[in-house]
Amino acid sequence: MEQRISLTTLGVRDMGRAVAFYEALGWRRAEAPEGMAVFDLIGQALALYPLEDLARDMGLAPEALGAGAASYAYNVQEKSEVAEVLEAAREAGAEVLKEAEDTFWGGRGGYFADPDGHVWEVAWNPFSPLREDGAFRWGGYAPSGEAG
Amino acid sequence: MEQRISLTTLGVRDMGRAVAFYEALGWRRAEAPEGMAVFDLIGQALALYPLEDLARDMGLAPEALGAGAASYAYNVQEKSEVAEVLEAAREAGAEVLKEAEDTFWGGRGGYFADPDGHVWEVAWNPFSPLREDGAFRWGGYAPSGEAG
Repeated sequence: MEQRISLTTLGVRDMGRAVAFYEALGWRRAEAPEGMAVFDLIGQALALYPLEDLARDMGLAPEALGAGAASYAYNVQEKSEVAEVLEAAREAGAEVLKEAEDTFWGGRGGYFADPDGHVWEVAWNPFSPLREDGAFRWGGYAPSGEAG
Repeated sequence: MEQRISLTTLGVRDMGRAVAFYEALGWRRAEAPEGMAVFDLIGQALALYPLEDLARDMGLAPEALGAGAASYAYNVQEKSEVAEVLEAAREAGAEVLKEAEDTFWGGRGGYFADPDGHVWEVAWNPFSPLREDGAFRWGGYAPSGEAG
């Protein structure tokens, strides 16, 4: 694995309230599909996403996620790398929460937890290819209107 | 506030185990003071830090932080901005956990929680000034050997 966080996703209980909070801080949303809010940062992005959806994507029960729940996405350049990175994480001692699979938004991803329960997503997102230096920039979403 | 995360700090129960895990993934530590591990990323950094120390810095009881606890640092260019950003967060609806104060490592910082309990640190770190574009690069630490 290279050293990067591509996307930090904060699980929230009330999307309207969460979006209003970050907008009140002066942050501006990027174009994103309904059901999530994305803020483009410097070489990464921050997403707000319902807690229950985050739990579902991780393959966990919603009650497994408490206040402050989040995931850190490590994005890869090639679709096949998702499974490779999950395997490397498992060998390093991670608990793989969800094996690599195609996602509803047209990418491929999986999840692992580090020894202290911090959850990482490994993601291939064809709509937001990484820049040459590995930096991530939110690239919109699929033409169908689904998440990207 | 501009849009950035300067430093993501993961609270861990066993530093040796946590460091071994990320090193097994192939990550390489930057030079950092004893008691924390820092990995330089792209325009930001990731720190591993004992859970009890993270709770203390946030002004919370250690039992308030569970598995997966983390904080997101928003670094500022000027010392006086710490209090200003905390005030802006309070006005936007945040709970300020710790007001601006000088830190043991020679900087200045404070903490707030967003409406869903995600904890942000607002930090001025004279040893790691932000780059012109706002990106953060771990800049070592104070000559005394204390954290920076």
